[in-house]
Amino acid sequence: MPETHGRRRAALRGLLTEAGVDALLVTDLLNIRYLTGFTGSNAAVLLHAGGDRETLFCTDGRYTTQSAAEVPDLDKVVDRASAAALVAKAAKDPKTYGRVGFESQHVSVEDYETFKRDVDLVRTPGLVERLRVVKDEAEVEALRQACAAADRALDDLLAAGGLRPGRTELEVARDLENRMLEHGSAEPSFASIVAAGPHSAIPHHRPTHAELKRGDFVKLDFGATVDGYHSDMTRTFVIGEPAGWQREVYDLVHAAQAAGTRAVAPGAEVSAVDAAARTVIADAGHGEHFAHGLGHGVGLQIHEAPSLAATGAGTLSAGMAVTVEPGVYLAGRGGVRIEDTLVVRAGEPELLTLSTKNLVVV
Amino acid sequence: MPETHGRRRAALRGLLTEAGVDALLVTDLLNIRYLTGFTGSNAAVLLHAGGDRETLFCTDGRYTTQSAAEVPDLDKVVDRASAAALVAKAAKDPKTYGRVGFESQHVSVEDYETFKRDVDLVRTPGLVERLRVVKDEAEVEALRQACAAADRALDDLLAAGGLRPGRTELEVARDLENRMLEHGSAEPSFASIVAAGPHSAIPHHRPTHAELKRGDFVKLDFGATVDGYHSDMTRTFVIGEPAGWQREVYDLVHAAQAAGTRAVAPGAEVSAVDAAARTVIADAGHGEHFAHGLGHGVGLQIHEAPSLAATGAGTLSAGMAVTVEPGVYLAGRGGVRIEDTLVVRAGEPELLTLSTKNLVVV
Repeated sequence: MPETHGRRRAALRGLLTEAGVDALLVTDLLNIRYLTGFTGSNAAVLLHAGGDRETLFCTDGRYTTQSAAEVPDLDKVVDRASAAALVAKAAKDPKTYGRVGFESQHVSVEDYETFKRDVDLVRTPGLVERLRVVKDEAEVEALRQACAAADRALDDLLAAGGLRPGRTELEVARDLENRMLEHGSAEPSFASIVAAGPHSAIPHHRPTHAELKRGDFVKLDFGATVDGYHSDMTRTFVIGEPAGWQREVYDLVHAAQAAGTRAVAPGAEVSAVDAAARTVIADAGHGEHFAHGLGHGVGLQIHEAPSLAATGAGTLSAGMAVTVEPGVYLAGRGGVRIEDTLVVRAGEPELLTLSTKNLVVV
Repeated sequence: MPETHGRRRAALRGLLTEAGVDALLVTDLLNIRYLTGFTGSNAAVLLHAGGDRETLFCTDGRYTTQSAAEVPDLDKVVDRASAAALVAKAAKDPKTYGRVGFESQHVSVEDYETFKRDVDLVRTPGLVERLRVVKDEAEVEALRQACAAADRALDDLLAAGGLRPGRTELEVARDLENRMLEHGSAEPSFASIVAAGPHSAIPHHRPTHAELKRGDFVKLDFGATVDGYHSDMTRTFVIGEPAGWQREVYDLVHAAQAAGTRAVAPGAEVSAVDAAARTVIADAGHGEHFAHGLGHGVGLQIHEAPSLAATGAGTLSAGMAVTVEPGVYLAGRGGVRIEDTLVVRAGEPELLTLSTKNLVVV
């Protein structure tokens, strides 16, 4: 992976030049992981626009062995106050580090007040995030593996009769999370949603001791984490023979999800992708029952840019990873959401979550 | 609980007056939970020094029902940009809100730049944290329950023969975490440490596929979460008959842990508490094998103030919750850490983690 991280640092250097700074103080741990591969809990990077030779990586003594293994290609400074230590390095060598930018959307006012006693830092928010929004192949592979772990866990759960009447939402959530661990997930990518019966009408329901019952919708929204990358998938099932209204709502959301997915392409306005799915639901008279955005970017964070929403701005690019997750929620009765994680590609998007979206009766 | 939260807000008002501000913009979600009981992921509070009547709580539309239930006693503003919305409220009514402080150790430079277009905010870092360091009885009860869930999970694990040779560190970690959930933990309070054999010499080892073997130390460092409050406990076991060096190291750490606990009292310097345990280990010639601090505060965060370390400053007060966790780590051979969570009380501290600290041979 060192080549991958080196390539990302090289790409960031282009943005530093554009922003008119000679170096960037990187303090956000996810951005540091993206640029160096380091997975510990304390680090800072002073990235020099000129190259890796003047770039410094700082962590504390607990991570000496780990940082040597994960970040073999950068010079190390060992200090518990990692960001402050690199600010001091920049202050001591203004000829090399010159104008230093910092991640002003992550650094607190208090830390900034401390740093600026040493160096006159320049606000340069969001530079690493601009790179992270388009995934490289190493990132897509991690996303693919996370999505595969979730797919396999769901397969196993269904094969074991894991959605039978009498089980509680909490039991199902724990079962699903354990099965993801067995398939290579380091941890759930967020608190799993298991919502049975009327609970399925609550978009972000947290699992309870409520039991699954015959005739219920059961909505599962869950994800795995591989190499720090998150998967995100929702599937909705019916226990026993579906009623007419359940088939109708399911088919509608299924059609909206397909329409949203078809709209995902390089150059598409994010608001137009949202509209493509939303129109299907609104035309069926259920517009008010779909009250959230269509989807979001996914990567080292479970929710990141871009936002696929009516109020969203900007267009999609090839290599972005996004979710498409329309839902229809009928308060007191039940709801359906169907969600995939996919990668924007020229032509059709690449689907990463492969579990069937046909109505499964369990 | 509303009375509890009202009492905490009243206590905070004393600090606002001291800091010379008429209101405080609270944006840290843990501080908001502490002051209001709200557990959602988006909120801000504009706490007025005069009372709850001019105090405003803001969250977004997803949390209308939840905030009505959790925060029945404050006026609500509904806005996705919760902090910015309350800054705008303060700007519109300078007669009421006057000088407004903000949590400058939590607010980013970028957000501050946005807010200060509306209002001239005053840096007032750490006010809520000053209250949080001393726990009230509702908090101690949550900590007690979290510690009990961890104690019971460990009991069950041992009764089920969960530390038998051939199991992997990962299996043991998952088993322990599931048993904590069964005993009322909402989630593990941090990534559990299960470290067998030579791995036990790594203070913060992450569990692997390595198998437990006869003759191994097995170090378990884990915790439960109840009502947002964390427990933290470490126990070290020997599989099969302990060797002489294992008994020796165990007894030494056990004695150091007892000495540290005896030093925990109102008025004690945190560095003196660290020294009380460290001296025992240093006198036995193992000073260099105990390279971390003695303990830390615990509450809504797993690590919070005060820090019980040689470099720590300040004294303990009744009602603080802290860990006492000395260790001796012999690289390549094995290590022992014994850790309790306890509450500082006049006289002896109140022990919350009750699992035996005698050497248990499994």
